[in-house]
Amino acid sequence: MMIVSNKIVSRFVDKPCLLIDEFIARANIHKMAKKARANKVNFRPHFKTHQSETIGEWFRDEGIKSITVSSVDMADYFASCGWTDITIATPVNLLQMKKINEIACVIDLNLVVDSANLAIEMIKILDARVGVYLKIDTGSGRCGLLPQMEEEIVSVTSMLSLSRNAVFKGLLIHSGHTYRANSKETIQGIYKNDMKILRGLKEHLNQYYKDEIIISVGDTPGCTLGKDLSWADEIRPGNFVFYDLFQWNIGVCEASDIACVMACPVISTYPNRGELLIYGGAVHFSKDILDFQDKSVYGLMAKSESNGVLIPDSDSPLLKLWQEHGLLRSGHEYVTENKSGDIAFVFPVHSCLTLDAVRNVKTTEGKSIKVMRKD
Amino acid sequence: MMIVSNKIVSRFVDKPCLLIDEFIARANIHKMAKKARANKVNFRPHFKTHQSETIGEWFRDEGIKSITVSSVDMADYFASCGWTDITIATPVNLLQMKKINEIACVIDLNLVVDSANLAIEMIKILDARVGVYLKIDTGSGRCGLLPQMEEEIVSVTSMLSLSRNAVFKGLLIHSGHTYRANSKETIQGIYKNDMKILRGLKEHLNQYYKDEIIISVGDTPGCTLGKDLSWADEIRPGNFVFYDLFQWNIGVCEASDIACVMACPVISTYPNRGELLIYGGAVHFSKDILDFQDKSVYGLMAKSESNGVLIPDSDSPLLKLWQEHGLLRSGHEYVTENKSGDIAFVFPVHSCLTLDAVRNVKTTEGKSIKVMRKD
Repeated sequence: MMIVSNKIVSRFVDKPCLLIDEFIARANIHKMAKKARANKVNFRPHFKTHQSETIGEWFRDEGIKSITVSSVDMADYFASCGWTDITIATPVNLLQMKKINEIACVIDLNLVVDSANLAIEMIKILDARVGVYLKIDTGSGRCGLLPQMEEEIVSVTSMLSLSRNAVFKGLLIHSGHTYRANSKETIQGIYKNDMKILRGLKEHLNQYYKDEIIISVGDTPGCTLGKDLSWADEIRPGNFVFYDLFQWNIGVCEASDIACVMACPVISTYPNRGELLIYGGAVHFSKDILDFQDKSVYGLMAKSESNGVLIPDSDSPLLKLWQEHGLLRSGHEYVTENKSGDIAFVFPVHSCLTLDAVRNVKTTEGKSIKVMRKD
Repeated sequence: MMIVSNKIVSRFVDKPCLLIDEFIARANIHKMAKKARANKVNFRPHFKTHQSETIGEWFRDEGIKSITVSSVDMADYFASCGWTDITIATPVNLLQMKKINEIACVIDLNLVVDSANLAIEMIKILDARVGVYLKIDTGSGRCGLLPQMEEEIVSVTSMLSLSRNAVFKGLLIHSGHTYRANSKETIQGIYKNDMKILRGLKEHLNQYYKDEIIISVGDTPGCTLGKDLSWADEIRPGNFVFYDLFQWNIGVCEASDIACVMACPVISTYPNRGELLIYGGAVHFSKDILDFQDKSVYGLMAKSESNGVLIPDSDSPLLKLWQEHGLLRSGHEYVTENKSGDIAFVFPVHSCLTLDAVRNVKTTEGKSIKVMRKD
């Protein structure tokens, strides 16, 4: 984060607000778009991280035309913002099929299934033309067919071929297990392994589909650190636009790549116990937690480097969160020198969940960032 | 929760939704209002749990006229819903003083300070008449003056007396440490101790204020289990309207008192690993966690008792949460007998945070419940 001064920010912040450094966010987008071009893969960024029409435009400025979302409501929102090629990258929710059919009538929509059964049920009620990906579980343990279930994989794809409206597009993975890794090498190892698995599957399916199958891969750790992404056809990272403490802590990004920080009014100070009470609680940060240096933290306060860049202060964790309030603890005097009515800057653990919780989002210059409504 | 059938609920639920059993919620309100009357204390329920105009009316039906909220925005919302006596029970945020002054011009508004310093700064920019409570920290360790700081306590109260607009009302506590208790007896012990502390302080201040000081106490565990509340002048519990797994687990309520359950579309089933993938993730449940029977859980699936009442199924925890999805694991066959497109019912850990996250709230009969907008 570039420098943000208390004085400037208090002109437009009076309650918890997620501040976005537009310069860094645009640089993160540019870097990933460039990497995608260099690897000759389609870049279909995941918009669940920002849920924002405004930030969507920053992607458009980089020439992005296809996007990923995580819910039908989000597909609907971004379709209304003019996006015409959207993948809902979570297995399809049959109860929202009416809305899905409506959206698919006006844009190119891709859905995901994770089993033969879900594919059958979806086909029965599909009224519009959609692309369909089959989810493969390469180790995250959430959902999808296991790579060794070759028979069921082929049976899903042929079932889709028989459907009037569904077009089988390819295989989709989300290597969520990179989030459990604790080193760059482990993450790179996971990607190498996934590559081997998916190449094998693609070769197997190519006998039916003449090399038309798309391999779509996700996750910020892998797409940021993976040296060679050219084995995939498409990448769908999302978090990289902001990064956060979690990504920084496992070595995915530098502190200076983090493009978002929470601005929280200081309510009062407790110098004798080295604590600051801030307006900013579970309903703003979310309760995602990071195991950091033998502590469980909800965030780290920001400190200024000599060049004015804000980076996380490892000695000043956000240790407690109630519904509306948080408690920062620090050994540094400058922390408790804050006064009631000042603004404390705190890096959140998980930028996606924090943005979803706080919904009040601005650039560091105070420009408003439009975010999808949630109700 | 009374019985809610998959068939009926799927008429009005197609995405994660917090279902409220109006009958049980009204019974919970009635019980607490009755207890307040029996103890001759003012009942000023905390509305941060439901944030809802609709549910506010259920309180009005019990004759409630004064309420508690946790933010300036919430005070503004409920003032616009016709509530005219509101306490914002968190230490005042100086950056929102303009809005506070506006609200205080049209309704009776009470604020809270937790130190002499905050009182001074507030008085400087206060333009309208408000009641002010001093926060006392009886052991929760969040904020407030310690009971033994008698000199500073007197100095805050006299400072307020000198102000043109602030009227010193009394002492306010939130015994948040009851939430760390693990038995009814511990909770009752905490209340006994708080009573002793506050009686002493009130006697001390009575020499200046002629018995006009209000002792305002909060928290659902203490107000539900406390045998004698008559030592206080006002109670401010909030969570009791719904209760949740957390309260049930520490013995504050019975399973049959829980008035809310999440309805989540079943995405797909993984019978061989005894798991169900549901549409319902961190952005719907929040990531508040409960240590339950040697596991960390985000919720427990509901099961039907013979009389049709839904209660938590201890063997079927919500074990994993991603942004939009969750994974339920169960040894019971009936769990994985669910089909894609069915609806799974899951009791959340913390009803306040879940409502804040999901914001899609309906009664079990499908009546829409209006909730404050968040942006």
